[in-house]
Amino acid sequence: MAESSERHFFFCFSSWIRQGLFLVLRDFQGLTQIIIPQDEAHSHVKKLLSSAPVESVVRVTGIVALRPPGQENPKMPTGDIEVKVETAEVLNTCKKLPFEIKDFVKKSEALRMQYRYLDLRSVQLQYNLRLRSQIVMKMREYLCHLHGFVDVETPTLFKRTPGGAKEFLVPSREPGKFYSLPQSPQQFKQLLMVGGLDRYFQVARCYRDEGSRPDRQPEFTQIDVEMSFVDQGGIQRLIEGLLQHCWPEEKGPITTPFPSMTYEEALADYGTDKPDTRFGMKIMDISDFTRNLGIPFVQNVLGCPHGTVKAIWIPQGMRYLKNKDIESLKEAARSQFNQEIVDIVCKPDGSLKSLLTRFLSQEQQSELTQVLKMQEDDVVLLAAGEHKRVCSALGSLRLASANLLEAAGLVLRDPAAFHFLWVVDFFFFLESAHHPFTAPHPSDMGLLYSDPTKVRSQHYDLVLNGNEIGGGSIRIHNAELQRFVLEKVLKEDSEVLSHLLDALEFGAPPHGGIALGLDRLISLIVGAPSIRDVIAFPKSFRGRDLMGSAPDYVTPEELEPYHIQVSWPVAEAEAKKN
Amino acid sequence: MAESSERHFFFCFSSWIRQGLFLVLRDFQGLTQIIIPQDEAHSHVKKLLSSAPVESVVRVTGIVALRPPGQENPKMPTGDIEVKVETAEVLNTCKKLPFEIKDFVKKSEALRMQYRYLDLRSVQLQYNLRLRSQIVMKMREYLCHLHGFVDVETPTLFKRTPGGAKEFLVPSREPGKFYSLPQSPQQFKQLLMVGGLDRYFQVARCYRDEGSRPDRQPEFTQIDVEMSFVDQGGIQRLIEGLLQHCWPEEKGPITTPFPSMTYEEALADYGTDKPDTRFGMKIMDISDFTRNLGIPFVQNVLGCPHGTVKAIWIPQGMRYLKNKDIESLKEAARSQFNQEIVDIVCKPDGSLKSLLTRFLSQEQQSELTQVLKMQEDDVVLLAAGEHKRVCSALGSLRLASANLLEAAGLVLRDPAAFHFLWVVDFFFFLESAHHPFTAPHPSDMGLLYSDPTKVRSQHYDLVLNGNEIGGGSIRIHNAELQRFVLEKVLKEDSEVLSHLLDALEFGAPPHGGIALGLDRLISLIVGAPSIRDVIAFPKSFRGRDLMGSAPDYVTPEELEPYHIQVSWPVAEAEAKKN
Repeated sequence: MAESSERHFFFCFSSWIRQGLFLVLRDFQGLTQIIIPQDEAHSHVKKLLSSAPVESVVRVTGIVALRPPGQENPKMPTGDIEVKVETAEVLNTCKKLPFEIKDFVKKSEALRMQYRYLDLRSVQLQYNLRLRSQIVMKMREYLCHLHGFVDVETPTLFKRTPGGAKEFLVPSREPGKFYSLPQSPQQFKQLLMVGGLDRYFQVARCYRDEGSRPDRQPEFTQIDVEMSFVDQGGIQRLIEGLLQHCWPEEKGPITTPFPSMTYEEALADYGTDKPDTRFGMKIMDISDFTRNLGIPFVQNVLGCPHGTVKAIWIPQGMRYLKNKDIESLKEAARSQFNQEIVDIVCKPDGSLKSLLTRFLSQEQQSELTQVLKMQEDDVVLLAAGEHKRVCSALGSLRLASANLLEAAGLVLRDPAAFHFLWVVDFFFFLESAHHPFTAPHPSDMGLLYSDPTKVRSQHYDLVLNGNEIGGGSIRIHNAELQRFVLEKVLKEDSEVLSHLLDALEFGAPPHGGIALGLDRLISLIVGAPSIRDVIAFPKSFRGRDLMGSAPDYVTPEELEPYHIQVSWPVAEAEAKKN
Repeated sequence: MAESSERHFFFCFSSWIRQGLFLVLRDFQGLTQIIIPQDEAHSHVKKLLSSAPVESVVRVTGIVALRPPGQENPKMPTGDIEVKVETAEVLNTCKKLPFEIKDFVKKSEALRMQYRYLDLRSVQLQYNLRLRSQIVMKMREYLCHLHGFVDVETPTLFKRTPGGAKEFLVPSREPGKFYSLPQSPQQFKQLLMVGGLDRYFQVARCYRDEGSRPDRQPEFTQIDVEMSFVDQGGIQRLIEGLLQHCWPEEKGPITTPFPSMTYEEALADYGTDKPDTRFGMKIMDISDFTRNLGIPFVQNVLGCPHGTVKAIWIPQGMRYLKNKDIESLKEAARSQFNQEIVDIVCKPDGSLKSLLTRFLSQEQQSELTQVLKMQEDDVVLLAAGEHKRVCSALGSLRLASANLLEAAGLVLRDPAAFHFLWVVDFFFFLESAHHPFTAPHPSDMGLLYSDPTKVRSQHYDLVLNGNEIGGGSIRIHNAELQRFVLEKVLKEDSEVLSHLLDALEFGAPPHGGIALGLDRLISLIVGAPSIRDVIAFPKSFRGRDLMGSAPDYVTPEELEPYHIQVSWPVAEAEAKKN
């Protein structure tokens, strides 16, 4: 609300720092230094401003002036000016704050959630929410103005989807009947394509009831896109353009097209379908090299189907990691993946220390050093076993070691870097379980009925810095194929989706789309540790609103119109007793 | 998807009219006439296009050419051209349609709702949804770019508000605890003001469980706006600018500022707080004239507090209305408002016909004719009684008679006219019941504790053509006053709103806002008879989705995680028996 002119200045907002002569006022544009008049004529102004508690809302008028030479503050955007107050009014006072509204004060999150409206005044949250608004607006402009998309709102009160165990229920006034809050507008966006709204998008509120999970929210937002007559590349180019268009200038440019990797490559090189490509330490396959070393357990593994020997290299591991770090990495692989890990250390004299060395000649040891490109103080973690398990375990250790190295002071990942990546060619059979509408790869159609496990899908994931920020697919537009997938591949009752199958029979155009997780995307852009930092009123990790105490108890009378009653766990126990 | 060039043409969409030589293809841009080649070389193309059922999706390539002179169709945007097909492909066929996709075919609404994706292909629904998207986009540009508003998403899983009987419940995994789907982001928008997000807007999904009500939807959308340091006029000018900015060019310009009327004026002149000002027939107060006529029941009424005699004039009523129409109007007033109506008819000879005439001399009768400005065939409906009841009854009859006159062929309201109106100065005491956060009028603050029924509120409604399309207020920003209103005026337990009262104590800035009902606004702009015509997937008036059959039954196992069970009405009946 700053309306500045050469002569007069009108300013309204919470004040927060006071000294004898100065007052700093804050509004959404930043901070402004106010000179409190010391003369007798303004004594009431001085008294009023001096007695207003911190974070009160005040209105002042005065004259904007340049600060005296030498008193400029180059760190403040308004550091060149100050305001000489003429009149002042306290519009509302502030009682004692539960915590100071400064960024470096990190009070317990529960307290900050309880007083979320105070936390929202912090520079960081103001920045996050205002930037979020700007980014979404630019996305809309790109989709509407540059690409002819239509913003269509789809219902959130719908029916339960098959297997929709994570969907919230909403009791209706019809006895026994419930609405369901959908996890995405998937069915509606496809029905819009059938309905000839050929380019649809929505900033869609979605719901997912996962109970207590860290950094998940029961309601979240996705940028939901669907278009007709498009292929995989078409959606990918569209989304690359979208991100380029909305990308904040201060975060530096992003280059397109984004690199692309098949699911199998991602698994082999990074042990995950969402590789963090900001740093190396890729998984090395040393099966061929180790095959002829005569190590018994290696021989065994390589003799099995999908048997493999792989390793990751931890640069300067001995300098940055402690022995207990390496032990904990090995223990994690054991407990999470049931995978034994062998560590190899390169000693200062260039020789190797590992339980493998006893199987190896001196010559074999130096060959191994060369193959692994190990230098003094490097550590290698080696795993032998079934391909997918080995890759997954090493992929997990790769991230864990990177975190340990960075915690110890080595910079592996540029915090200002944004590495986008498409992951493609997922396996149709695995994919259909989550995305039953995904179309198989056209060149694999022949395999669908003969060898379905080999069929690739037209699904694609978008990954940013190792986080999945979006996923989509070209959809099945043929009713017969969709029915086959539901009934024969997924063994589902297709009756519950009869309206969609029906719709495909009425001349559905070929179509495909994608959904981007907006909360995650924004949190990565602003560098926030949690998606809670980019949501105005987030729930706690247990799904609670700590400010308004939701969810909350209701009276039995309030449940009556919905024909439901609470099954109290205690009552259940008592019922069993009788 | 039409990519036209001088030589080649690529086109994809459902076909719908066929003749021997021509095919008309439709896409989102309109219709294009396709010439089916008749030569031998293209016999397969002819066969394919001739055999594709109506509404199939086809792709054709060919050469765009001007139609032969004289064959242009000026009614079609593409009526000057035609496409000479070279290749064709049927991308998906269409089975037999349940109804024809033409605008003039008005099949039963239930059938159209069941096949909503087919209905969406109609020119009218395509226009409505695409225009809605454009209007909302322009609103966003106005708010974000021209006025610095921040788009903030607020939660829809919250807690029940006091008296929130119309809020859907969402069972949580905590036994006995429920979320509630809010009717508006009211609390959150105010908390955002406390949080320093001084200009907030959201295109907000809201929920209201009203059971079966015609032309209401259980979920609906509002343009939700709140700002700090603003007064009533500030919000009004902002919204006038917003509507002017987003107004579709083809609907003609709208002029600002909108006229304004107090609640008392609206009641006195139109008998409602949402006057349709597109036509006259205003309520006339004839208390003074009738006072001295010596009619017994009039004398009685005028002797009572708030006693009044009022009338509405129905021009040419005898020519356009039947006797039974007038009887039904009188009966409606009796049954809905418990208000007797006396009709007065001006006969061709200028004399009056009415049960009043027996109380009146010839001279008094012609005076009455003059006062009421009656001419031959005019009808006047007269009511005597308590001010509010008389006004409400006559206001209702005014609309009903206008509908009857128009049904009989008289044009009273220009269907292309848009009459906006602000209604202001509602009574604080009545208003607070629905809007407990509305601030009293500053000049009436003194009356708040002494004579609260006289206090006016800072609430304002926006009315368009007799429909309330928005409402808002300047809010209470003082915790003490808010507590007084909740506890003393509304006699509510303020504990449930303690987080809001708390927030007001931490330096809340003065603030106010408004919410516009988007569905209703768009339906008025496009001239749709129902808001269902501007929503992609509306519910039926019983709250059902007829396409996907929502709400639907769920298994007891699905209810278990939420600690609820269904109270079947039959089971209840049986329980009562025992």
